[in-house]
Amino acid sequence: MEQRLPKGFFAGGVSGGLKENKCDIGFIYSQNVCQAAGLFTNNQFPAAPVALSRKVLQAGKLQGILVNSGGANAITGERGVQDAKKMQQLFAQKADLSQDLVAIASTGKIGEFLPMEKIKRAVSKIDLKEQNLIAFQEAIATTDTQEKIISREFLLDKTTIRLTGIAKGAGMVHPKLATVLVFLLTDADLTSEQLQRLLKKAADNSLNQLTIDGESSTNDSCFLLANGASRKKVQLDSKAEADFAEGLEQLLIDLTKKIARDGEGATKLLEVRVVGAETVRAARKISKRIAQSMLVKTAMFGEDPNWGRILSAIGDSNDRLDITTIDVAVCWETVLQQGIPAAFNEAELLEKLKQEEILIEVNLHGGREQATAWGCDLSEKYVEINAAYRT
Amino acid sequence: MEQRLPKGFFAGGVSGGLKENKCDIGFIYSQNVCQAAGLFTNNQFPAAPVALSRKVLQAGKLQGILVNSGGANAITGERGVQDAKKMQQLFAQKADLSQDLVAIASTGKIGEFLPMEKIKRAVSKIDLKEQNLIAFQEAIATTDTQEKIISREFLLDKTTIRLTGIAKGAGMVHPKLATVLVFLLTDADLTSEQLQRLLKKAADNSLNQLTIDGESSTNDSCFLLANGASRKKVQLDSKAEADFAEGLEQLLIDLTKKIARDGEGATKLLEVRVVGAETVRAARKISKRIAQSMLVKTAMFGEDPNWGRILSAIGDSNDRLDITTIDVAVCWETVLQQGIPAAFNEAELLEKLKQEEILIEVNLHGGREQATAWGCDLSEKYVEINAAYRT
Repeated sequence: MEQRLPKGFFAGGVSGGLKENKCDIGFIYSQNVCQAAGLFTNNQFPAAPVALSRKVLQAGKLQGILVNSGGANAITGERGVQDAKKMQQLFAQKADLSQDLVAIASTGKIGEFLPMEKIKRAVSKIDLKEQNLIAFQEAIATTDTQEKIISREFLLDKTTIRLTGIAKGAGMVHPKLATVLVFLLTDADLTSEQLQRLLKKAADNSLNQLTIDGESSTNDSCFLLANGASRKKVQLDSKAEADFAEGLEQLLIDLTKKIARDGEGATKLLEVRVVGAETVRAARKISKRIAQSMLVKTAMFGEDPNWGRILSAIGDSNDRLDITTIDVAVCWETVLQQGIPAAFNEAELLEKLKQEEILIEVNLHGGREQATAWGCDLSEKYVEINAAYRT
Repeated sequence: MEQRLPKGFFAGGVSGGLKENKCDIGFIYSQNVCQAAGLFTNNQFPAAPVALSRKVLQAGKLQGILVNSGGANAITGERGVQDAKKMQQLFAQKADLSQDLVAIASTGKIGEFLPMEKIKRAVSKIDLKEQNLIAFQEAIATTDTQEKIISREFLLDKTTIRLTGIAKGAGMVHPKLATVLVFLLTDADLTSEQLQRLLKKAADNSLNQLTIDGESSTNDSCFLLANGASRKKVQLDSKAEADFAEGLEQLLIDLTKKIARDGEGATKLLEVRVVGAETVRAARKISKRIAQSMLVKTAMFGEDPNWGRILSAIGDSNDRLDITTIDVAVCWETVLQQGIPAAFNEAELLEKLKQEEILIEVNLHGGREQATAWGCDLSEKYVEINAAYRT
């Protein structure tokens, strides 16, 4: 149930030898042309597949996506551009589609050329009738250790529609305007303009508030495809649209938490909520700055209520703040009240810090806006993974 | 020789029980009133001693500085402000000085009150005639493992003057407008206006280009004191002033490198040089972004020439860059030329990466400006130190 595709969608993965003994080429295919939207990295050097998919999505239509792991096809010059086009072409031929209905995505090491012969052979093995999200997930994974698939049904007016999201991402995660690789599929019927607007809004409250290591990838891509197979037309500015938007945002938040929890080397999910801010922008910035702090992250790994580091991070977020109105709570224990260290039950807090989900709450008492950011703790394992990623 | 004080300066440390069996209260004292300048953290929540010292320095005069480790006196509210004043008072009484000639600095854990009785007893033990930079260094250290003292003589016109710098800092290091704790002493004779201008300029090319973990402390402070004991008056805009400025900048760069090399858990010094930039600002930003990248830092720890991470960091620095003109070299081996992966001798580069100083050079071929940033690699030890700092 958690891993069902919406009506009319197919997905799967095959092994092409880019990663050892694992699926590394994944596909998504819809029985009919989808309205589509996308968000992509704002790294100045987007990977070749990002540039290609961004261009394809200008027309707002997609019917298939081909993805590979085991190579990012980033910083690969003109040859990388040609390889990206070739990937698009391979899947278009396989599925008998026009090339401009096919997007692509790549993830893996930056700066190496893709093994195109291997990819060609792998694409020929794809079974377009497959509905195997586990294989697709495996095909897009790099250092991921947990599945990141969420599938939900909800009622729009009286029609049941399904929305399914699949994500990858464990390191180089600090999305700006986009994220990692995320694929969102629905059988509801919306226009590409609606999808783009709703996706942007949902991502601003979820994926764009996620940070694992402060590194924005060259390959971040987030796709949203609607094939209308449920025959539910979602009218502009209708209650159904608002319901869909809410469902989309919640699903994206839950995917975001899955990515954070599976951050490289992470042992804990970190949720940072900032309330009482003057602007949403300030609340987002401050919450993300705390989630990004190496010292907060290491303290959480050490299960250490060293809240001074939280304050230092807030103070470093460059907003004009009045410390004398700030309250901070860690796992519901108030550690700072109106800028003054609060007496708290240390034994109790130490016990709570052993949990796998840590909540940090900051009340600025300076307005009515709020935001949440997600991250993870920083363990020795992160260093181990990334010092040895290449070999 | 390397650790001599300029004429007329005294410094030392005593043990007050704030740290176990180590000097933790340090002082600097000059035989006469000094012209003085300072740079301080731009963290929104400066520690109480920072606020006090910044105010004292408005008059441009200092004769003594009292420093403690074992407690940052930051986020300590009104009681912290009173404690800072008390520290200033204690040293003013001890040295028979007017309070407004005494600055103070603190470092250690944020959010705890200082043990004022212990500090009072320690100050009474200070011997103002001491000239012991090693004891002073110990008194200001937290997780530091290496000494950070540089003392140099140079000729201004025909007079020999001395400039001595002492620094601490190993974690929470990413100074903005100031840094960690740095004390610069000279027996040359300059006005506080001169000192402030020369200090700002030198810091912009050194301390402000340093990052260990991207965390700007609440307690960053950098002092420059000139007591004129060499009887060398440095005239405004003279050749002697230019020579002094150059000597000051070089000494600050060398101190910066000492701090970077002793970064928490560091095994290597990272030097990142960006040339061919359109503006100095862009060169500074890009070089610092690379030095700050967790993925570049872990790759260097792993002695892994994973240069794709360097490019991703450049692309994330948000400047409009043309990748097709960019060259990158690691330890003098070109790994990217005009945006295309270059063939390099991998065995040779792997050998070079074993060195303790790693140089990353980026040529943007987009202008004539340049900048350098300093940092260190990221090892499991950083996590270990910071997950356990509290206990």
